[in-house]
Amino acid sequence: MIKAALKSQAIETPSWAYGNSGTRFKVFAQPGVPRTPWEKLDDAAQVHAATGVAPSVALHIPWDKVDDYAALSAYAKERGLRLGAINANVFQEDDYKLGSVTNPDPAVRRKALGHLLECVDIMDATGSKDLKLWFSDGTNYPGQDDIAARQDRLAEALSAVYERLGDGQRMLLEYKLFEPAFYTMDVPDWGTAYAHCLRLGEKAQVVVDTGHHAPGTNIEFIVALLLREKKLGGFDFNSRFYADDDLMVGAADPFQLFRIMYEVVRGGGFVPDIAFMLDQCHNIEAKIPAIIRSVMNVQEATAKALLVDREALGAAQASGDVLDANAVLMDAYNTDVRPLLAEVREEMGLDPDPVAAYRRTGWAEKIAAERVGGDQMGWGA
Amino acid sequence: MIKAALKSQAIETPSWAYGNSGTRFKVFAQPGVPRTPWEKLDDAAQVHAATGVAPSVALHIPWDKVDDYAALSAYAKERGLRLGAINANVFQEDDYKLGSVTNPDPAVRRKALGHLLECVDIMDATGSKDLKLWFSDGTNYPGQDDIAARQDRLAEALSAVYERLGDGQRMLLEYKLFEPAFYTMDVPDWGTAYAHCLRLGEKAQVVVDTGHHAPGTNIEFIVALLLREKKLGGFDFNSRFYADDDLMVGAADPFQLFRIMYEVVRGGGFVPDIAFMLDQCHNIEAKIPAIIRSVMNVQEATAKALLVDREALGAAQASGDVLDANAVLMDAYNTDVRPLLAEVREEMGLDPDPVAAYRRTGWAEKIAAERVGGDQMGWGA
Amino acid sequence: MIKAALKSQAIETPSWAYGNSGTRFKVFAQPGVPRTPWEKLDDAAQVHAATGVAPSVALHIPWDKVDDYAALSAYAKERGLRLGAINANVFQEDDYKLGSVTNPDPAVRRKALGHLLECVDIMDATGSKDLKLWFSDGTNYPGQDDIAARQDRLAEALSAVYERLGDGQRMLLEYKLFEPAFYTMDVPDWGTAYAHCLRLGEKAQVVVDTGHHAPGTNIEFIVALLLREKKLGGFDFNSRFYADDDLMVGAADPFQLFRIMYEVVRGGGFVPDIAFMLDQCHNIEAKIPAIIRSVMNVQEATAKALLVDREALGAAQASGDVLDANAVLMDAYNTDVRPLLAEVREEMGLDPDPVAAYRRTGWAEKIAAERVGGDQMGWGA
Amino acid sequence: MIKAALKSQAIETPSWAYGNSGTRFKVFAQPGVPRTPWEKLDDAAQVHAATGVAPSVALHIPWDKVDDYAALSAYAKERGLRLGAINANVFQEDDYKLGSVTNPDPAVRRKALGHLLECVDIMDATGSKDLKLWFSDGTNYPGQDDIAARQDRLAEALSAVYERLGDGQRMLLEYKLFEPAFYTMDVPDWGTAYAHCLRLGEKAQVVVDTGHHAPGTNIEFIVALLLREKKLGGFDFNSRFYADDDLMVGAADPFQLFRIMYEVVRGGGFVPDIAFMLDQCHNIEAKIPAIIRSVMNVQEATAKALLVDREALGAAQASGDVLDANAVLMDAYNTDVRPLLAEVREEMGLDPDPVAAYRRTGWAEKIAAERVGGDQMGWGA
Repeated sequence: MIKAALKSQAIETPSWAYGNSGTRFKVFAQPGVPRTPWEKLDDAAQVHAATGVAPSVALHIPWDKVDDYAALSAYAKERGLRLGAINANVFQEDDYKLGSVTNPDPAVRRKALGHLLECVDIMDATGSKDLKLWFSDGTNYPGQDDIAARQDRLAEALSAVYERLGDGQRMLLEYKLFEPAFYTMDVPDWGTAYAHCLRLGEKAQVVVDTGHHAPGTNIEFIVALLLREKKLGGFDFNSRFYADDDLMVGAADPFQLFRIMYEVVRGGGFVPDIAFMLDQCHNIEAKIPAIIRSVMNVQEATAKALLVDREALGAAQASGDVLDANAVLMDAYNTDVRPLLAEVREEMGLDPDPVAAYRRTGWAEKIAAERVGGDQMGWGA
Repeated sequence: MIKAALKSQAIETPSWAYGNSGTRFKVFAQPGVPRTPWEKLDDAAQVHAATGVAPSVALHIPWDKVDDYAALSAYAKERGLRLGAINANVFQEDDYKLGSVTNPDPAVRRKALGHLLECVDIMDATGSKDLKLWFSDGTNYPGQDDIAARQDRLAEALSAVYERLGDGQRMLLEYKLFEPAFYTMDVPDWGTAYAHCLRLGEKAQVVVDTGHHAPGTNIEFIVALLLREKKLGGFDFNSRFYADDDLMVGAADPFQLFRIMYEVVRGGGFVPDIAFMLDQCHNIEAKIPAIIRSVMNVQEATAKALLVDREALGAAQASGDVLDANAVLMDAYNTDVRPLLAEVREEMGLDPDPVAAYRRTGWAEKIAAERVGGDQMGWGA
Repeated sequence: MIKAALKSQAIETPSWAYGNSGTRFKVFAQPGVPRTPWEKLDDAAQVHAATGVAPSVALHIPWDKVDDYAALSAYAKERGLRLGAINANVFQEDDYKLGSVTNPDPAVRRKALGHLLECVDIMDATGSKDLKLWFSDGTNYPGQDDIAARQDRLAEALSAVYERLGDGQRMLLEYKLFEPAFYTMDVPDWGTAYAHCLRLGEKAQVVVDTGHHAPGTNIEFIVALLLREKKLGGFDFNSRFYADDDLMVGAADPFQLFRIMYEVVRGGGFVPDIAFMLDQCHNIEAKIPAIIRSVMNVQEATAKALLVDREALGAAQASGDVLDANAVLMDAYNTDVRPLLAEVREEMGLDPDPVAAYRRTGWAEKIAAERVGGDQMGWGA
Repeated sequence: MIKAALKSQAIETPSWAYGNSGTRFKVFAQPGVPRTPWEKLDDAAQVHAATGVAPSVALHIPWDKVDDYAALSAYAKERGLRLGAINANVFQEDDYKLGSVTNPDPAVRRKALGHLLECVDIMDATGSKDLKLWFSDGTNYPGQDDIAARQDRLAEALSAVYERLGDGQRMLLEYKLFEPAFYTMDVPDWGTAYAHCLRLGEKAQVVVDTGHHAPGTNIEFIVALLLREKKLGGFDFNSRFYADDDLMVGAADPFQLFRIMYEVVRGGGFVPDIAFMLDQCHNIEAKIPAIIRSVMNVQEATAKALLVDREALGAAQASGDVLDANAVLMDAYNTDVRPLLAEVREEMGLDPDPVAAYRRTGWAEKIAAERVGGDQMGWGA
């Protein structure tokens, strides 16, 4: 049963993680980085080939804008992939300096809304079910704008988009504590996202980006709560030591990732309704193997979560035995699940070692050699 | 109009701030500290006499348990005071080691609920309108208890208490990130408190304790949001540099207090419905003058918030002029409002300098001399 | 060689962890808690019997004051133990409200210094080699005292104590970001402790308490730095999610503990000169098994650190292969070292499962039954 | 005397603040932004003309590289300015992906050192006295590189640069908790910078960037400590709510800025030896007036710090009167010093309102109209 669950898990990789990324100080380009959305899909296909559990790819509009989404979708299909969530981007045009849907200027708000609605059009074309909304909107200085008025504007835009959603389409609303706005973000925490989603209706759900919280925030608590409220739409996985560092998921605090996955399993969230998405920046490490490693990290945390002896845990919890209850959880966490996952992979017809398998393909060398000229893709391109 | 608002402001002082407090390392006793709830009211009367804006006193049950609440209420009235919010305490009995209303043991939950209902009985007797609920409930170790199950238990208890509330009575639900629980708190953030209050109904509202947030949390944003949602019940004011330090309000970040008060004013929250309560620990400083100073700090922040030129601010915001909008806010903040408040006090028949006025009464010397013997009150007594 | 290292490891347990502890909200007493320092040693002997690697016990003066330290030392010896670091306590007398060695009042400073010197006398009597100094000194309010003047007073006291140290005696200086002081601590960070130790001389070294840092602080970096500077004296191990939570070491972030132990191993610090001490509060869990569990957690982290393939790691680092270098480290971390430690224990003549072994002794039941009456020990008693 | 001090204060503005800046998400260009270092000086001259206290401009190499530094220096002089600190930049070339002076590759280290030495050459040419070193060096993943080995490499490079310094030249070493490296920074805190500077000698001093600390860090404590150790070289002023937000100094926490300036005044640091530099990013607000506002904010904090009644403060501190000591400090902080500064400006022959004076010049309109074409300067150009 654990094996079956692991085989059925689907982890969505983000198109932009295959492109260049960096900090405000510097974007270090890497050889072989895709120049087009099509090449991003080629790379994603490598990740799926190696891991068997990364069948879908999230798009970022306009970074992944193409003329023919049906063709892009077909291209994906040929490579064993499908197009996943559509990520709207209303933060990279000059007009958005003071906000997009919350901008004090109604013309800018209309423009931003237009983009969001266009993203739903693209969903129709790609067959994507999820519209992921993250707003960089906010303010840098006290007094810069009216906090409550911005909420009104946000609610208005969300409502318009929600109305446009078709059957089987969802809106996933992401929150973030800070960056790029440094005084207020208009959706800074899960509570704000939750309040808006509640008002909108069933098709609106909250996305938890694991790097978007204040220090000390207990993320698995939020996961448990949102699942209890049926408002958890999915995850943007990554990891961080400080802020929104966007490191490989599981790299900074693998125990936290395990606890999160345990709450997912416990809360019945290990179902297709919960989108497990990566959202990372591989600034200095090779991108494709880093994404493979990230997928594996999610799998390892999931396997451990599935291994928790929930009967024993429940009994220890009910009896108030703090140490025993903790020990049951730790027993699963301390287990080395790599042999189990190797078995799972072999049963799926895969190499037990996805990174080694990928390296043997020579793909990295091939793209470094072939993808010469043109503009490498990255944030903003 | 600003003066009228300042004269009408009412800041509730907490009975326990007149008693001893400290850290887990040491409680430093101070001479003259009250031995009974009655003596606490005597001290609170001094604060009100000096400031004119501290007419009510919050009680903590069982710390302030008395046989005859009508007598206590009358005693307060004779001193120009009234009894304010009733604060329930379900964290100081051995039974509550693993929680009160969220305890895995149903017998403990029943006991805790009994206490909460008793607090409503006391409200009936004292005429208090607010029941303030803060739960120390939580867990210290991953796996110790089931996060979602504890939410179920919490919801059940809150619902039972809510049903018991009479007309004109409210439940104010407080949240806190951590301490005394160090892994999960059952109500760690405003979102959790909000979600419960929303489900309960109009009589349930959220209390913002200014010291109960993760580092970096934008408190005025929460205030603006809760006011917009009509779910802000009031404040527990104090200040902090690190965690729940419980220093005098305005002592650590007076600009933050001003921003909070501006959102209160802006959001229409400067009305009797919003309870302005202090919740502080005067571990090393003299208690009564510290409370007077705290009341004055709230007044100063309020005065500055009222001074904001909202028309100019709105114009700058609408035009997207970041620097001008910020400058309008800062202009009010940088104003020295002490002369204005001195005038207000004189018009109220008070000494313009409340601390000096208090010192001249000789009250500190009197209680140090007279309150000898007996057990000084503090947390837990 | 790894096994030999694990067998030679010595983890010091703190006498006070066997007593009651809690938060400012409540200390929950537990049955069977020691009433005397002698009984604490009896409990510590159980931990050492079960684990084989906890041969010494740190004392806290005055909590563990006895008339005859030679007798206490002999009592320990009979139980296979020795007395470890002497922990001075200058924070629990009323005189210390505004500080001990940094107090503005010279009389209080003299008193505090007297206590520190008395602790060195006790070291002479017990044969302890380490004097551990943690100062709660600091201020709660801006302006309360002069920051630099307090440093002068601190330096003067440390110097007087340093002069008193005998051959083979060390001063271990601990730092802490906050609590119980909430504006400034006089030794808030490793830099301050380091600066003082540097000036004092070779016998003064820094102690790293793993719970005493600001959020986001990279503790293993500090460990690496202090080892490089030959100024790391030892650890106070515990774990935390938020502040100085004092949970069982390894309970909150086992990966961090592993990284710390890796730096210890890498920096040559896995030698008797580095004191591995626990400093924890078992507020809600049974104390003795929690301490056993903590010792085991340190062992597991140590075993993983010893398993790191340093040659492979060095090669990957030298070649700038970020993913491979990280993978080498993670490979050791992801290993389940419990079987290895079970073997080590069996080779040491111990039960492979220390917690089970302890439970079989019936000690918990015995002390609960026998230690009736008297005053249980705790902080302050 | 306060007026004289205020008139003598010199605040250095950074050339890069006149150029474009942003976040990794987007750099919003502004009209009129300089295309050359010469135009940056033109803008800086406006700031000095308006404020009278911003006579020097820090350069960033290679952003401000010119063929003829003597000509640049003369150009500055003609505008009433002088060239200030030279800021080295070893983070924007592809070679520096894994570090500059701490890179595992010796060839990269040599290149980085070459740049640092070139910066000293430039200092010789410009007559700058301060070399400011900030290293983005660090690692993103545990295991990526050896922490202690990187310290060795850092020490080696610093030593080589130190040896190159001429008479009257200083090395100012900056620290930063995180960003762009997300696991370790090689100089993450003041302690690390201090340890290196101590070893190097008198010409090496620490720079405090007010945005580079962990949450909760008490910056004024560090200032007091470094002044006591004679190791404070200067400040990079800016403000932040979250991380290294680089907002206008004084915008986020004016009380903190006041406390910092008080420690400067108290510690004798209000002398030419302490460099008061701005280091800010005006991502969304107009740059020149934002810099003027920042200079004014430093002046206001300084004026308040100078107003502290140090005799009364000392007396209250000595007597242990917490509330009175705090009140003395707050009395200065709560004073509206804008009238005093207006007087100071008038006595200096300046407009009492620098922002209004700047606006009247029409400079903003002029540069927007004239600086058309060419590449606007920013980070990296």
